[in-house]
Amino acid sequence: MTRQYHVDGDLVDRSEATVSVDDRGFRYGDGAFETCRAYGGAVFLWERHLERLERTCETLGMATAVPDDLRDRIDATLTANGLDDAYVRVSITRGMQPGKLTPKKAVDPTVVVYAKPLPRGGIEGEPVWEAPAVVETVETRRIPDSALPADAKTHNYLNGILARIELRERDGSIDESLMCDTDGHVAEGATSNVFFVSEGTLRTPRRGSLLPGITRETVLELADRADVPIETGRYSVEELRNAEEAFLTNTTWEIRPIERLDGAAIGGGPVTDRLRSAYDELVERCCYRA
Amino acid sequence: MTRQYHVDGDLVDRSEATVSVDDRGFRYGDGAFETCRAYGGAVFLWERHLERLERTCETLGMATAVPDDLRDRIDATLTANGLDDAYVRVSITRGMQPGKLTPKKAVDPTVVVYAKPLPRGGIEGEPVWEAPAVVETVETRRIPDSALPADAKTHNYLNGILARIELRERDGSIDESLMCDTDGHVAEGATSNVFFVSEGTLRTPRRGSLLPGITRETVLELADRADVPIETGRYSVEELRNAEEAFLTNTTWEIRPIERLDGAAIGGGPVTDRLRSAYDELVERCCYRA
Repeated sequence: MTRQYHVDGDLVDRSEATVSVDDRGFRYGDGAFETCRAYGGAVFLWERHLERLERTCETLGMATAVPDDLRDRIDATLTANGLDDAYVRVSITRGMQPGKLTPKKAVDPTVVVYAKPLPRGGIEGEPVWEAPAVVETVETRRIPDSALPADAKTHNYLNGILARIELRERDGSIDESLMCDTDGHVAEGATSNVFFVSEGTLRTPRRGSLLPGITRETVLELADRADVPIETGRYSVEELRNAEEAFLTNTTWEIRPIERLDGAAIGGGPVTDRLRSAYDELVERCCYRA
Repeated sequence: MTRQYHVDGDLVDRSEATVSVDDRGFRYGDGAFETCRAYGGAVFLWERHLERLERTCETLGMATAVPDDLRDRIDATLTANGLDDAYVRVSITRGMQPGKLTPKKAVDPTVVVYAKPLPRGGIEGEPVWEAPAVVETVETRRIPDSALPADAKTHNYLNGILARIELRERDGSIDESLMCDTDGHVAEGATSNVFFVSEGTLRTPRRGSLLPGITRETVLELADRADVPIETGRYSVEELRNAEEAFLTNTTWEIRPIERLDGAAIGGGPVTDRLRSAYDELVERCCYRA
């Protein structure tokens, strides 16, 4: 079966899933997106993804761009593709506006939903991202909040792409680039947030120069509920390298231990394991027992 | 006549000028572009635009993406649309690559050429951008070079768009946003470089936190040839506001005097006028006497 995409309100074959080259999403990366996961046909933590998508659109000056029936479009896309466990990407761009760079307030957005298979893994099967991550720091610095609001998830993704391109020239087995902010503190990976454990406390860079991921927020909550002490702050790469445990988070990787950082072994451990179990339990509760 | 676009090697009607939603240009703004002007059917300073386009593609890790016949595609687009004096936009994206954020080295780029009428103005007629510009400083800071190489002209244009969106909430007559770098020095406009004259010297922010425009470079050369002292450096907004003359440059605006900055009158003057004449003379020489 040809994969079906949801483009501007209609399900279409992949080959017909196109946008005009005049779409501001294409011309300028002028759009917002979210990456979600569906487990057992249910989109995990959808309300949080929707909230962030709306916030990103507001930051981009197109607060009304999110269609009311977005969740229906996602469900229709999952059904049309016969998917229960899936990676789901939702993009909302400013659409076409002739001429000027300065956007008009009235927006006719382009809305695209895309889904592909992504088995759950975890409790009931093999984890999808079983292998821990090999991570290296890169020269590319995280764009500061004053230039592009850090909590907006946009189609301007070259910062992370350039961070990944640095890895292409190195050993091919590296999974993620670790970016620092312009002050040299640990910020985030190209597509992930970073956590580490030292002296029994779970630590993660505080907001400001990172995209605060839904999984990051969830992990902080789960740690607090499990009575694991948590701290957000500014950390050096060295503190991270010397950690007792370290892991990355994002929607698709969930909680992924860092095997090595810049060649130094770190790995998961008891806190990471507890959080992974708690995360799987949350997926179970949200998506299967509802 | 329906406007013709040049997409991936073919001239197509505007309505058929589309790209896949899987194109990395759409997903991530993962592409390079140039804005050029054609005067009398000839693309002004094409070699410089081509050089920058190739440099941007190299920065993006796709050095081979610029097709050998790009100039022919531009000429074909101008001819198909019956245009002599035109605005020309060339986009080269990384095209489609399934899956990962980390780009593959082998690239099948998406190449789009777009042209629309833009009368010359200047010597032989009315300047297209006759009105001087009203400029205001904004809060949005220019993305630092360490996060996104400043000399790359890419589809990641939200920094400038956010700078322009700030103006939407103010008086509607403002033409351009002035951005400072993260240290608070004058960087550039959302789509333009900035120059000013004080104590008889032509000054412009030095490279580092700005896109070094083709017009900026040309104006520096023309000033030097006209024996106008030039200086590049780091300047405060106050120095610019107190200037004897000030103007913006870009390919479409050419040299456009700043009428007011944050409400303070500046305007053009004798140096600006000399440079505008020299620029018009260069257009004449390059595009009409060749």
